[in-house]
Amino acid sequence: MPHSEALTPAQRAIGDFAPKLVSLTDDVLFGDVWERTELSKRDRSLITVAALITNGSTEQLQYHLARAKENGLTEAELKEVIIHLAFYAGWPRAMSAITVAKDVFGA
Amino acid sequence: MPHSEALTPAQRAIGDFAPKLVSLTDDVLFGDVWERTELSKRDRSLITVAALITNGSTEQLQYHLARAKENGLTEAELKEVIIHLAFYAGWPRAMSAITVAKDVFGA
Amino acid sequence: MPHSEALTPAQRAIGDFAPKLVSLTDDVLFGDVWERTELSKRDRSLITVAALITNGSTEQLQYHLARAKENGLTEAELKEVIIHLAFYAGWPRAMSAITVAKDVFGA
Amino acid sequence: MPHSEALTPAQRAIGDFAPKLVSLTDDVLFGDVWERTELSKRDRSLITVAALITNGSTEQLQYHLARAKENGLTEAELKEVIIHLAFYAGWPRAMSAITVAKDVFGA
Amino acid sequence: MPHSEALTPAQRAIGDFAPKLVSLTDDVLFGDVWERTELSKRDRSLITVAALITNGSTEQLQYHLARAKENGLTEAELKEVIIHLAFYAGWPRAMSAITVAKDVFGA
Amino acid sequence: MPHSEALTPAQRAIGDFAPKLVSLTDDVLFGDVWERTELSKRDRSLITVAALITNGSTEQLQYHLARAKENGLTEAELKEVIIHLAFYAGWPRAMSAITVAKDVFGA
Repeated sequence: MPHSEALTPAQRAIGDFAPKLVSLTDDVLFGDVWERTELSKRDRSLITVAALITNGSTEQLQYHLARAKENGLTEAELKEVIIHLAFYAGWPRAMSAITVAKDVFGA
Repeated sequence: MPHSEALTPAQRAIGDFAPKLVSLTDDVLFGDVWERTELSKRDRSLITVAALITNGSTEQLQYHLARAKENGLTEAELKEVIIHLAFYAGWPRAMSAITVAKDVFGA
Repeated sequence: MPHSEALTPAQRAIGDFAPKLVSLTDDVLFGDVWERTELSKRDRSLITVAALITNGSTEQLQYHLARAKENGLTEAELKEVIIHLAFYAGWPRAMSAITVAKDVFGA
Repeated sequence: MPHSEALTPAQRAIGDFAPKLVSLTDDVLFGDVWERTELSKRDRSLITVAALITNGSTEQLQYHLARAKENGLTEAELKEVIIHLAFYAGWPRAMSAITVAKDVFGA
Repeated sequence: MPHSEALTPAQRAIGDFAPKLVSLTDDVLFGDVWERTELSKRDRSLITVAALITNGSTEQLQYHLARAKENGLTEAELKEVIIHLAFYAGWPRAMSAITVAKDVFGA
Repeated sequence: MPHSEALTPAQRAIGDFAPKLVSLTDDVLFGDVWERTELSKRDRSLITVAALITNGSTEQLQYHLARAKENGLTEAELKEVIIHLAFYAGWPRAMSAITVAKDVFGA
């Protein structure tokens, strides 16, 4: 396995525990799907964050909120995503997302 | 109640059956939240569609895919949303969404 | 199997296909749990309907909305359950429930 | 923002981070919907708790179990809600709810 | 696109509408993951069916119940999966699955 | 209540807090359903783990991964269940399951 600074997020999270899931994540999900130009990375972050909030996947939300900022979404936009999804995913999902976002955004 | 051509989607779907839900939908959700400029209508459609696919809410997806096109999303972008969410919401949700999208897009 | 008029809902829905699920439903769920006096039947209908709306289990909602009326809930109360849950389960779940309720209540 | 003792739960949980979500929660959800007389506050707590258990929203369950007691539900009734929902939301949701309830009820 | 008799299930369901989803399904999901020997095809059908029942993905359940039989699971085993999951995914999911299974098994 | 070493998992987790849920778990779920021979205990563990991963019930996953090993599933098989379900329950559910599995398997 390469030096730590060269590790992908999947390698850090999964490592030698399930190498096939690492390669599916790195080669197919991030290396292929995320790189397709049919949607911008900003838009992909937008729908990924929306899916995680809707699913209550707060553990993955932390990573993807940070990634969303790298992909060009502002904190104001991401907060508005949570407000909007309070209606479409329900208040409890929005409240859980707020807790994570406050932590990620250092609020 | 106003003439049929003036009815909002909520008035058509809910009507006199639950007037409070009509006014919450028309005044708060569409009249207030959707109109906020913190996110464009295109982005709001993007996350709404993502939430519906993730939740398996295929009944609402039909309306919101059409609305998404009115809000500036192309069919190619919306198909790519489904492909992307196959990974984040799971294959079954993507397959159900494909069925609805084929119907809405006349494919 | 007894005469049709004597069949339980589970016997009608499942029948000889999965007799164990029939007996678990009739003897444990309806015969034991629903009969416990710690909660009234009205309250049990209230939380059952809430669970079905939240889960998007519209197929079971039809039966349980009718049963809820038999257990003393009014149509006005059941509509209000849907309005309340628009916030806690999200708008799409409420809209799907409205469709079923309109059908069951003959609206 | 008012003195701490005057803060609403939404102000405490969300604060300046997303003021629009605070006002939607305080003015629309709690100030309007929860105050409607079509359902008693006790019944609203009952279905809110049922929705949270069904959705696996354990983070919000803590607050709403305490609120449910203020709204007139007994601990015995709330435990029975969990037992009943073991069947309608599945055993895992009930087991997670038991953990929260034991904590809230000081058991 | 090849002759109809040579079409994969994904080609039939998705076709030219989203070719990337077809190739991800045929090459990655079915061509790679399902072919890995770490789990037998019978076991993969077992967990796929369990995931679909738990998620309420009844539309995909029809195809996968038939595939499960091809992969060596008996109807008696598949019924028992539904009975078992009544407890772990909740009664409503089991009841929806029974409806699909009765149809697929010609009961 | 019997000596600690004789306690069932349900007695340890629920105890005197909700005795009816203990007896339903011990007598009906474990004492009756899990003992039925229509599915082996290994297969029951397989679908239980699949249901928990799909539902995001990570709290219960810890116990059931350990039980799955007692019922004859290898760590390699259980890792493969997670990889397979990345596609059917979505990547976020798989990533959460990996975290629990690494902990349970001491990786």
